This record gives sequence, structure tokens and C-alpha cells, in this order.
Amino acid sequence: MLSKNINYSVYLILDPVLTENLGMVQTAQLAVQAGATVVQFRAPQWKKRQRYECALSLKQMLKNYQVPLIIDDDVDVALACDADGVHVGQKDLPVEVVRKLLGPEKIVGLSINNAEQMALVDPKMVDYVGVGPIFSTTTKPDAAAPIGFDGLKKLMQICPVPAVAIGGIKAHHIESAVKAGVQGVAVISAICGQDNPEQKTQELVRLWKQNTI
Amino acid sequence: MLSKNINYSVYLILDPVLTENLGMVQTAQLAVQAGATVVQFRAPQWKKRQRYECALSLKQMLKNYQVPLIIDDDVDVALACDADGVHVGQKDLPVEVVRKLLGPEKIVGLSINNAEQMALVDPKMVDYVGVGPIFSTTTKPDAAAPIGFDGLKKLMQICPVPAVAIGGIKAHHIESAVKAGVQGVAVISAICGQDNPEQKTQELVRLWKQNTI
Repeated sequence: MLSKNINYSVYLILDPVLTENLGMVQTAQLAVQAGATVVQFRAPQWKKRQRYECALSLKQMLKNYQVPLIIDDDVDVALACDADGVHVGQKDLPVEVVRKLLGPEKIVGLSINNAEQMALVDPKMVDYVGVGPIFSTTTKPDAAAPIGFDGLKKLMQICPVPAVAIGGIKAHHIESAVKAGVQGVAVISAICGQDNPEQKTQELVRLWKQNTI
Repeated sequence: MLSKNINYSVYLILDPVLTENLGMVQTAQLAVQAGATVVQFRAPQWKKRQRYECALSLKQMLKNYQVPLIIDDDVDVALACDADGVHVGQKDLPVEVVRKLLGPEKIVGLSINNAEQMALVDPKMVDYVGVGPIFSTTTKPDAAAPIGFDGLKKLMQICPVPAVAIGGIKAHHIESAVKAGVQGVAVISAICGQDNPEQKTQELVRLWKQNTI
């Protein structure tokens, strides 16, 4: 469906708690219609049946848009619903294993927190990295120490693949993110659980474009 | 490596907490040397990297024995370490999906707690069922209500595939399990965490043989 020419600019990560009112699929659809460019499904607190069923529904909905669906951690769920890729952290399956299971066409993303991890990123295995957390967040309680935009800027100097900044990113941080050299911002609570996710997404898209022309 | 002619009689499920002293691999090896016929790896509390690495080590060790390695829940881990099969519960991936991902040669097991679930078991999708819990246990806090040997006996009358009884099974229950019609007993704490897992396994094997001749 998609070439590897991915637009990572407004990368939505769905959160099952924050989207409880609207639901995951509805939140994703509103965001995508407003210009979100990637959707990641992440629900570690759910049992796998529920994760699989939600991922299937997201895939079905996203068929109508040129927006890739990335599954957090579960390569089996990604294979089962023919998702566009998988995002793994440092404590999930190694990227070599993920690449082997998914094949060369799918997107593999990896979370990066420090220079040691970044130095190991192999562009043959990893399509993009999520670099952070920029700030501390409540949506991922087990996250590593925040690196700030200064830390991000340093890591971007040795980053061999496209990168998204992640961790507490709001609309007013986009200018700093662009200046640090990333290709996108990953957001959770900036869209999920907001009264008007479309408007919030439009604002992120507008600011991204404004800062990258 | 294995035909589908599996000996399910003494089916060991490894528990990461109970095996903390000896370790998963050492516990499994002692049990297998003493006659355990299946090893299931289950560690839902671990991150997937650790699960993957442990499953790889188990697979490596079990190569020397004609004993299949079954992975709980994680089809991706099973694929990555070329395990012999996957065991899923009712809230994990549907068995049709697991079968499709693993192919026809691998073993697919399914947990069954009641007649409604048993009636849906399709022998093309499911190689064996784990029926229970017979008793309530501490190793699986989210398990369904215990069914006892009477419940097991009733379910076995409509069971279309080989079955193992699971949930609090100890050596002195083997006679009842055999009489209920199962092809094996799945044990956790009867082996894991015991001072002498070899001896405990030998006892289970001896009692199984004694009751099935």
C-alpha cells in the first residue's frame, strides 16, 4: 500500500485511557481527517484479543486514507491485521527479529533515549526512531529520564534515519522540535482525550507546516 | 522436528517467580531429564525482550530432547525462536489467527473453562486443550472459576482433541485426572520451585504410567 516515503510529521499515538470517551478508532479518524500522518496503536494494559480486534478496526478505517498504521510491540498483531509496521522499545523484541518477521516492506520503528542506543541504529533494520522522552509524561510511567530539546538536538547529530520527538510534546513545542532536526512529533495527550481532537490536530499540522517551510 | 503425535502426559508450565532460584532453563532441563513430556514458557510479567531471550535459551536446550516447547500467548516470540507451538487463552489471539501465523505443522493449544468454549473447539485449528482450572491456584490470579474433576469429566465427554487438566494439579490428583479422560496433566508449582524438581517430575511420570497401563 505505502512506499517507504513516510510523512512522520504529525505522528499520533493512541492511548486507550485518554480515548475512552470517543474510542480509539473515532479519535484516530478525526485526527487523520485533520491531517495526522501516522497512527500508532498502543494498549499494553489490554489483553491481546482486544488489541487484535482494535488494530483490525483501525486498519479497516485507515484503508481509506494514505496513513500508515504502526503497532506497538506486538509483531503478531501487526502480522495478523496486516498493519504497516511495528514500533519497539529497547526492552521489546530486537529490531533484527522484528525486521525478519515483518519483511523488508514494513515499517520498523525504535525508541531511543541516549547516544549509546542511537549509535547502534542500523538503517537496514530501522526505518525511523522515536527520540525521547523530551519531557516526563504520565502516559508512559516506565519511561526513561527526559532529555529535553538540548538532548534531542545532540542525538539528532548522530541519527542515521528519520526521527520523531516524543514525550510530552504539545503544539507550542513544535518550533523547538523542528529546530532540533526531527521529521515529526509523536503526540498522545495533545490529541487523545481533547474535547476537539480535529482542531488540536489541525493546529499541530498548521504549526508543523509553518515551521518547516 | 516433531510429528503431531505429542505425548502430553506430564506437561510442565514454567513460572518465572517460582523458578527464581534454579532459573527457567535449569528447571526445565531437570524436569525433561526426569520425563516431563512438554515444556510451556509463560512469563506475562516480563518484557518481551526477556521473554524472547529466555524462549531462545529453552529452545536451544530442548533441541537435545524430543520435547516440544510451547510459548504462552506470544506468537511473535514463538516464530522468532522457532518454538514448536503456542498456547492461547480465550482473551489472547483467536486460534484461527494463531494457526494462520504458525502454519499447519506447529502445535496450537487453547484454554477451555466451560462447555460453551469446548463446543467451539475446531480440531483443524486446535491441537490440544488445557481444561480447567480444576482447583483455584495462586500462579494465575486472573483464572476462571475452578471446575473440579466432576466439571472436567463432563467437559471431556464433548472434547474433540487431546486434553490436559490444569490448575492446582499435584501428584495425588493424577488418578482422578486419568479417570476423567485427559491425555496429560499440566503442572506449575508441582515442579517449579520444588527443592527437587527431578524427583517431583519422576513421581508425576511414575504415577501417570501407573494409572494409564
